[in-house]
Amino acid sequence: MVYYDYSERKWQLRCEMCNEEFGGRVAAAWICKECLQEVHRKMDRFMSLISFLRLDPPPSPPVTSSGLVLLQSAVNSDGAFASVPVDRVVLRSRSPVFKAMLATDMEESRTGVIKIPDATPKVLESFVSYLYTAETTLDEDIARDLLILADKYQVDHLKEFCERYMTSNVTYDNAIVSYAFAHLHNAKLLQDVARSLIIENIDMGTLMEREDYKELSEQDPHLIVKLYEAYYTNLARTKDSNVEV
Amino acid sequence: MVYYDYSERKWQLRCEMCNEEFGGRVAAAWICKECLQEVHRKMDRFMSLISFLRLDPPPSPPVTSSGLVLLQSAVNSDGAFASVPVDRVVLRSRSPVFKAMLATDMEESRTGVIKIPDATPKVLESFVSYLYTAETTLDEDIARDLLILADKYQVDHLKEFCERYMTSNVTYDNAIVSYAFAHLHNAKLLQDVARSLIIENIDMGTLMEREDYKELSEQDPHLIVKLYEAYYTNLARTKDSNVEV
Repeated sequence: MVYYDYSERKWQLRCEMCNEEFGGRVAAAWICKECLQEVHRKMDRFMSLISFLRLDPPPSPPVTSSGLVLLQSAVNSDGAFASVPVDRVVLRSRSPVFKAMLATDMEESRTGVIKIPDATPKVLESFVSYLYTAETTLDEDIARDLLILADKYQVDHLKEFCERYMTSNVTYDNAIVSYAFAHLHNAKLLQDVARSLIIENIDMGTLMEREDYKELSEQDPHLIVKLYEAYYTNLARTKDSNVEV
Repeated sequence: MVYYDYSERKWQLRCEMCNEEFGGRVAAAWICKECLQEVHRKMDRFMSLISFLRLDPPPSPPVTSSGLVLLQSAVNSDGAFASVPVDRVVLRSRSPVFKAMLATDMEESRTGVIKIPDATPKVLESFVSYLYTAETTLDEDIARDLLILADKYQVDHLKEFCERYMTSNVTYDNAIVSYAFAHLHNAKLLQDVARSLIIENIDMGTLMEREDYKELSEQDPHLIVKLYEAYYTNLARTKDSNVEV
């Protein structure tokens, strides 16, 4: 940052990372603002990934429950279901909900089986894989199903991962469905992006013709009300700023 | 970076992070060279931490061995020893040596006990804690003992952590001991720093009076030879550059 120092009566240069003045002592590196922002974003992402990946401290003896737990998916259309063995330490460390379930006096801890009725076998495997490695391949369906699981079991890092994916895939066609989905699963970023897309790009006069609009107004009229409110608030703001110009 | 573009016949500014030309389009951020280097170092450290913390993929069924393994320390001066329960997934993921020991047909895997004769109870607990959380408090003794364990069980991230700590604590008094230790446990950075400190700060004429020198020349004369060689190579280089000046 370049600024005028009134007490010294000269132009000064301040490092935009450590905030120290250059004072002629150290060489400056020119980087673009985009890169500077990207660095900060990347650091934040790294730190959140690291805090996700750190395990809980080791169990202290006497250890009464250890080893594997079986996560059981819903039954598939062909009658099959998955039963995926997962290390307890992974479940405990990644999810406060699983951690509570695995407290010694809970049924899940005794039986060593946790049912995940919201997950198909495929989604369950993807879920478990992420818990171990913080990596999994997403498509639209898997991102949606994983976000639901991540929200339910409070795996915040995975939820954010899915939400970022879904946010970058909001379109004119799926905006209303995405908006309703985001509201249901408390995905704030996705909801904001979907709402903006709706109120800025969809003609409110023809909105009510859309099938997804009709469905949502049946299921959750409050959400439709919020859409209209956002639309008119935005409209008023736009008009104001037009007047100012 | 500022450079002269001969084809355009004008001065250009290039972002030192993405290497793109500014071209008047984007604003520049001035950061100091120290910060730029620190960013790169930090990113490297973060990425190595992340790759350390990621667990191996979940075990695929049928799972024959699971649960906890007991790590047993050496016997303490008061006759006690520690027996620390550790999740197999943690051992498998953090150390290729433990991973091999825990292959299904190995004795350690069957008995569920791994002896760690190099570790006192205190050091073993610190070691296990690091395997789970990538955090532990170091002092000089613990750093040395942990480095030995980390080297033996190929826990590279921990080894580097200890080596950085020891490197910043090399002094005139412990330089020779550090140099020999680093050689024994293949700690290259520490060895380089200790060697430089010796050849640049200790008078080679009086070196041979030091007790630690005498001990080392008994135990490992090859290392002493290398010290002398480094000393004279450095001396020749210094003379050359003096001549140039």
